Order: sequence, then C-alpha cells, then structure tokens
Amino acid sequence: MDDKYKTLAAYLESAIPIVSKMGLTVVSMKERYVKLLMPISNNINHVGTMYAGSLFTLGEIMGGAIFVASMDMSKYYPLVKDVQIRYRRPAMTDITTEISLSVDRLTSIISALEARGKSDVPLELELLDSGGEVVAVMTGTWQVRKK
Amino acid sequence: MDDKYKTLAAYLESAIPIVSKMGLTVVSMKERYVKLLMPISNNINHVGTMYAGSLFTLGEIMGGAIFVASMDMSKYYPLVKDVQIRYRRPAMTDITTEISLSVDRLTSIISALEARGKSDVPLELELLDSGGEVVAVMTGTWQVRKK
Repeated sequence: MDDKYKTLAAYLESAIPIVSKMGLTVVSMKERYVKLLMPISNNINHVGTMYAGSLFTLGEIMGGAIFVASMDMSKYYPLVKDVQIRYRRPAMTDITTEISLSVDRLTSIISALEARGKSDVPLELELLDSGGEVVAVMTGTWQVRKK
Repeated sequence: MDDKYKTLAAYLESAIPIVSKMGLTVVSMKERYVKLLMPISNNINHVGTMYAGSLFTLGEIMGGAIFVASMDMSKYYPLVKDVQIRYRRPAMTDITTEISLSVDRLTSIISALEARGKSDVPLELELLDSGGEVVAVMTGTWQVRKK
C-alpha cells in the first residue's frame, strides 16, 4: 500500500477499541478501493464459528473505510443509517470483503454533498470465507456529510 | 434472578469471548423475559458514542437469550437468519433492550418445532438510552431447531 493508505489503514484498525480487539485488518487500500479481513481467532462464538456480530462489524466498518479511501476526510465524514445482514452459512475461516467505487459514482456523491451538504450512499457487500463461499450478504445506507 | 436464570445469564455473558469483552450484561431474566445492557465504557467509537456494531450485538444476542429464557436448550438451539438495524440517534449512555414472549407465542413456536423440526421466529427490538430515548430499532428472524 502507498504510505498515505498505510496511515489511513492504521487509523481504521485502531480508532475503535472494540474493533481493534476483534482484530479487523485492512488487507488492501487504494484510491476508491478497500479490502478488509476479520480473523476467526478473536471472534469465535459458542459453537466454534465466527460470531454474527463480528461478521456485521466487518461490513459496517467498510461503510466508513470506502469513504476514507475515496474522499478528503478533513472535509467530509460518514455515518451509518441502516444495515441489513443475511447469514447464509457458518463462517469457519477468516472472512474478507471488498468494495470499489467508480469515478462516476464518487463524482455524483461529491456533487450531492456540495449541493446539499449530505449524500445517502447505498452499499452492497458479500462476506467471503477463505474458499470464496459467501457466508453473509449485507446491504446498507451510509450518509456522508460536509463538516 | 432465580438461581436457574443466574446460571443461564452467566453463560450468556461469557460464552462468546468478544461479546464478553464488550461487557454485555444480563440485567434481568425470568421465564419468557430478558433485559440486556451494553455498557458504553467498553464500546466507545472514534467520535465518543457507542460503536454501531456493539449496538447490533446487543440486539443480536437477545435473539439467543430470549429462547434460552423460554425453552429447554438441551432439546433446541437458536440461530440467526437475518437482521435489520436502523440507527436513530447517537448512543451516548449505556444502552438496554428488553423483550418478552407470551405463553401463546411460545406454544406456537414449540408446536412448529415439534411438527417440522424448526421454527422461524421474527423479533422486533428497541434499543434505549438511559433517558428512555430510542437510539436504534432492530428486526430480525431467528430460527429455533430441534437438536
């Protein structure tokens, strides 16, 4: 990762203490792209698979991370409005998710922000195990606001 | 709480290590009723309010806890299918949620379980701050299965 993104990744991994305890890791970050990993080791539940709330957290953090990777966070900040998660199968390995924003989509988000001071951004995520199987799908709406 | 429920509460608070680190607490448990609390102290986010994933966890654990308080868990077990959460306002205090199942509702869940081996149970929850304000609402579907 470029130094700029290393600094942002370190912030994302440490800014929220309980998320840091989960071991959330930024695997890759570049302009308009993020890949995150949640390790199973810190997040085992009572039946030996990854706890449902840790899977949720993996996707929820992405809703901030993708904006951190795409926009000037000295001018804007994201917040979460609503999230839906559907669990498909038990998560028995480390779990990853990735997302990218197109230039066109980012341009329209920033246009809305500059015009109205905020912009609702729906996101869809797949949470994948190490074999590439989808363990959960998430959809949600985040809102980016001007500071 | 009765001794039976003290034992079950201690299990709920300790069975999942990362949930234990959050400090999730069973405030009250009796037949077909549970009240849970998530302390803000362990769950502060980067802007000083409760992290969205910890709020989610409070409700997600309830989807197991209410069945633990209502049914014989040597015969049945719950799992989460899908959850929706809508964030209403920043959570700046400890947060609680409570739920009760009526005798009629429990009877119909157990009838479905005995007839088909499983029963889908939709639940609705309000997450309240210490002033009684709703900080988030959750709906979800849990499934109880026969062992």
